[in-house]
Amino acid sequence: MASSRVPSLRVLGVDPGLTRCGVGVVDVAADRSARLVYVGVIRTEADAPIEFRLAALAAGLRDVVRAHDPAAVAVERVFAQHNRQTVMGTAQASGIALLVAGEAGIPAATHTPTEVKAAVTGYGAADKRQVQTMVARVLRLDALPQPADAADALALALCHAWRRGSSAAGPAAGALTPAQQRWADAERLARR
Amino acid sequence: MASSRVPSLRVLGVDPGLTRCGVGVVDVAADRSARLVYVGVIRTEADAPIEFRLAALAAGLRDVVRAHDPAAVAVERVFAQHNRQTVMGTAQASGIALLVAGEAGIPAATHTPTEVKAAVTGYGAADKRQVQTMVARVLRLDALPQPADAADALALALCHAWRRGSSAAGPAAGALTPAQQRWADAERLARR
Repeated sequence: MASSRVPSLRVLGVDPGLTRCGVGVVDVAADRSARLVYVGVIRTEADAPIEFRLAALAAGLRDVVRAHDPAAVAVERVFAQHNRQTVMGTAQASGIALLVAGEAGIPAATHTPTEVKAAVTGYGAADKRQVQTMVARVLRLDALPQPADAADALALALCHAWRRGSSAAGPAAGALTPAQQRWADAERLARR
Repeated sequence: MASSRVPSLRVLGVDPGLTRCGVGVVDVAADRSARLVYVGVIRTEADAPIEFRLAALAAGLRDVVRAHDPAAVAVERVFAQHNRQTVMGTAQASGIALLVAGEAGIPAATHTPTEVKAAVTGYGAADKRQVQTMVARVLRLDALPQPADAADALALALCHAWRRGSSAAGPAAGALTPAQQRWADAERLARR
């Protein structure tokens, strides 16, 4: 494939959640073609105390980062207007995903569900099925990615790479803002 | 002091925040008398990317846990009805505090601002000044704890110990639920 010769950006997408946290890793080339690297769901036990659920989630995310070494992490942006009980758990899970990125010296970004849908399907109000269908087509999967959290994580990763890629510098060079580059360097140095 | 002869519970209170995170450690005896162990504020740079702010917050909290070895961590419960932009950062910071507790095998609990005010002043609608005054009196401080985030963290820690202490088993024995005990043991074993 021609696309394998140009530098590609490896992105970990995270659909944050305590009960099910979707994780998807893709390699995206400068020509926007993409390849599935890994997809999965991290689950934590609903009857476990919150502090140990968050610790289990962090451990699961660190395993994925260690195994696949992404250059960027994209996390779904959580809003406060939804179900109050659920949204706090989701917000805390998103904080854990961002933390795991930061501690690994990997720049992170958040994208809204509307941004993800628009980037992947061209339509910000697309339904879950349309998003899953486009993700499967782009990644040349034989079946729709399951469960929905895993598909959402892949869509987030694609959205991130494509939105970055639309900047003048291209996806590989444009992955970090200057502030992220400075902090990522500092974080890596501190861990040596 | 008679109170120093009975077993006491060491509690870390955390008033979660990204810009300023209040932390306070107290020893609380079975007779409800309390001693200040440590109080401070963890700050992160407002212009740093969120993933590195959360990493800096986690590092600061881990330092406090390492230095003072609390038996319990109390975190202010965050609600979604406040300012949406701020509340997400606060929710993420509270997730980091809970994570740091879980990863250290320390049981955590959340308390609402109303519960904290009621426990410390006897009045759930008390204002910040009344809470600070009572905290200073209980801990026999010469001045009001400053800034407000630090006072809130101490109030949280006192609230946690006193609410636990009102159970039949007393503060030392009653600090963990059975589920927390099981998970704390598992977390500690996994880290050996």
